[in-house]
Amino acid sequence: MSGIKDRVAVIGMGCSKFGERWDSSSSDLLVEAAHEAFADAGIEGKDVQAAWLGTVASFRTGQPLAAALKLDYIPITRVENACATATDAFRNACYAVAAGIYDIVLAVGVEKLKDSGFSGLAVAEAAGADVNPPVPPPSQFALAATRYFHEHGISYEDGKMTLAQIASKNHHNGTMSPKAHFQREVSVEQVANAPMVAWPLGLYDCCGVSDGAAAAIITTPEIAKTFRDDYVLVKGLGLSVGAYGIMRSDWDFTHFPETVRASQAAYQEAGISDPRKEIDMAMVHDCFTITELIIYEDLGFSPKGRAREDVAAGTFTLEGEVPVNTDGGLKCFGHPIGASGIRMIYEVYKQLQGKAGGRQLKDPTLGLTHNLGGRPGSFTCSVALFGTRD
Amino acid sequence: MSGIKDRVAVIGMGCSKFGERWDSSSSDLLVEAAHEAFADAGIEGKDVQAAWLGTVASFRTGQPLAAALKLDYIPITRVENACATATDAFRNACYAVAAGIYDIVLAVGVEKLKDSGFSGLAVAEAAGADVNPPVPPPSQFALAATRYFHEHGISYEDGKMTLAQIASKNHHNGTMSPKAHFQREVSVEQVANAPMVAWPLGLYDCCGVSDGAAAAIITTPEIAKTFRDDYVLVKGLGLSVGAYGIMRSDWDFTHFPETVRASQAAYQEAGISDPRKEIDMAMVHDCFTITELIIYEDLGFSPKGRAREDVAAGTFTLEGEVPVNTDGGLKCFGHPIGASGIRMIYEVYKQLQGKAGGRQLKDPTLGLTHNLGGRPGSFTCSVALFGTRD
Repeated sequence: MSGIKDRVAVIGMGCSKFGERWDSSSSDLLVEAAHEAFADAGIEGKDVQAAWLGTVASFRTGQPLAAALKLDYIPITRVENACATATDAFRNACYAVAAGIYDIVLAVGVEKLKDSGFSGLAVAEAAGADVNPPVPPPSQFALAATRYFHEHGISYEDGKMTLAQIASKNHHNGTMSPKAHFQREVSVEQVANAPMVAWPLGLYDCCGVSDGAAAAIITTPEIAKTFRDDYVLVKGLGLSVGAYGIMRSDWDFTHFPETVRASQAAYQEAGISDPRKEIDMAMVHDCFTITELIIYEDLGFSPKGRAREDVAAGTFTLEGEVPVNTDGGLKCFGHPIGASGIRMIYEVYKQLQGKAGGRQLKDPTLGLTHNLGGRPGSFTCSVALFGTRD
Repeated sequence: MSGIKDRVAVIGMGCSKFGERWDSSSSDLLVEAAHEAFADAGIEGKDVQAAWLGTVASFRTGQPLAAALKLDYIPITRVENACATATDAFRNACYAVAAGIYDIVLAVGVEKLKDSGFSGLAVAEAAGADVNPPVPPPSQFALAATRYFHEHGISYEDGKMTLAQIASKNHHNGTMSPKAHFQREVSVEQVANAPMVAWPLGLYDCCGVSDGAAAAIITTPEIAKTFRDDYVLVKGLGLSVGAYGIMRSDWDFTHFPETVRASQAAYQEAGISDPRKEIDMAMVHDCFTITELIIYEDLGFSPKGRAREDVAAGTFTLEGEVPVNTDGGLKCFGHPIGASGIRMIYEVYKQLQGKAGGRQLKDPTLGLTHNLGGRPGSFTCSVALFGTRD
């Protein structure tokens, strides 16, 4: 076996405006994201040799992508894999390029949640109702928060303050993201005092519900060189799916083993031994603030039970040691399920190129994306690593 | 670019009994197919490093496969791509192995149509109702039949007789398939005189509605050698998705360009220049008898407009020059959408190994599978080629 490191490159990306896109169909959003990616790469649709479409509810096959982009007769695969849908579409596209089957391919993710009849319960529905009765995601993750507070001896007030700092950080970053759904400051006090959704998670502990699409043009590093100097290399790809759910007796509800497994797989491919030191930025699945807190630990950025101290120290702010969700995350972009993973890759790509505008970090060279879907105990988790050329 | 030829091998396959499986859940069918594949390969579930699950309606993510097979924490991708769902799951699994990312992977397809609320209209629904109002598949393909008859000056009686010969052939083959849903002879007269479904297609011109699952264990040829002598090599993989549908002014309704494109792509990878001479057997998408007739021409087995003569000459029977649907095809197995493509690969695999029982062909060395999904004008078509080791 050999890993994906440095065998695949991204030469163009696009991202639609995220938000309440009542005026646009899913096909419109695909066109908006893909054509930005084509223009960024300097290619046309006819140069795309194969495509992967990630979507949960917008379409059932790859055919609507062919229709939207006029990609006649090429291979198009549709991938649906809960909240990891977009990144898994991207992952399969990378493998086809790494295998030498195609030179230039498109990976694109899209979702409309606002007028699809598929909104607040999206995550529970995507996970399938065949194992347990569907529980709304805020309730599922609220259990993680209460258990995390209990295990680590954290009072409600203290824990709530930590979660509020995470939400406020992401909203601050979102003020510098022109494509975000929500672009205004939300103070720690506003988060802490917001109406309760599922105790202890309040309104601002939950991500938004939005429409959006994002696209990537993937090729080999050899070909990438002929297109641009600042192409971005894939350094590692990990995916982990949990089987047993919380029916397992050793399930502790204070960490998500799928994140650990997926990140370890990606770190191994990329040759990373100290993620906190080596990784310059991370885009993680902040569907709820408690999720982001636990992810800090599961990715190896903070010791178990100690992420609160790092939050308090500002470790994950734009100026911190490991900036997380630099574009505002799911908090500000919402979570159009099939689009989120590639939207995260878009942000890493722009940061590594130095094109992230007001939220630009200082010379990042290695970035991570992370998606977590399904439900606690039987998650689908994807982790991807991206780096600049040496 | 380099093709897939001889870079990936199949070392184990399984196929559930197809039929009205009221007693079995989709998970049960996954277990039935996958465990036969594990036993055939001589591996256990824990040896599987990654998996691809093809299904249209049984599940929405890869997670239920993890739960059914206790594949804890490995990567699992779910693919849905109309009637090409299973073969496209298989295709993506092959690319990951060819890229060297994994050594041993599982591709599995499953569908329950009988108690899922997803039966007769499955194909139209899978194609998405976003472009045209859904038209039941028999009506769509009936239009292909009437147009084919018209273009080639064929009377209803003559055309109907040709279609009846195809149905009767497949039902004859099905009598030797213990896993088929339908295992009895149906005469040419029975087909020709059956109740009409969508003129000129009668009851026996249409495939059945069944439940089923099929699974494949995929690895590299180097590793395959350490497992068994009679492993089967992947020789070519083609996928083609049409964008424009019958809104296109040059659409002639007497051939399916997606089949031509997908097969040409696979032939190019495999180095095939004369498919009729070089290919020893084919499993094609006989959702309706007219579909199989048109596929003969689109795959290059018969000249355009001349397939009727080959049907009359017995070219596609078990004793003919290019036996087609040797296990009875969709006619006898029905079309549990997410399973059909890998069920076809199962038959090619068994034939190439000389283990096809009463329907065994004489020393085949190269076999083809073909799936066609969606609707005329915007099909999703997969073609795969398999061969014995040299």
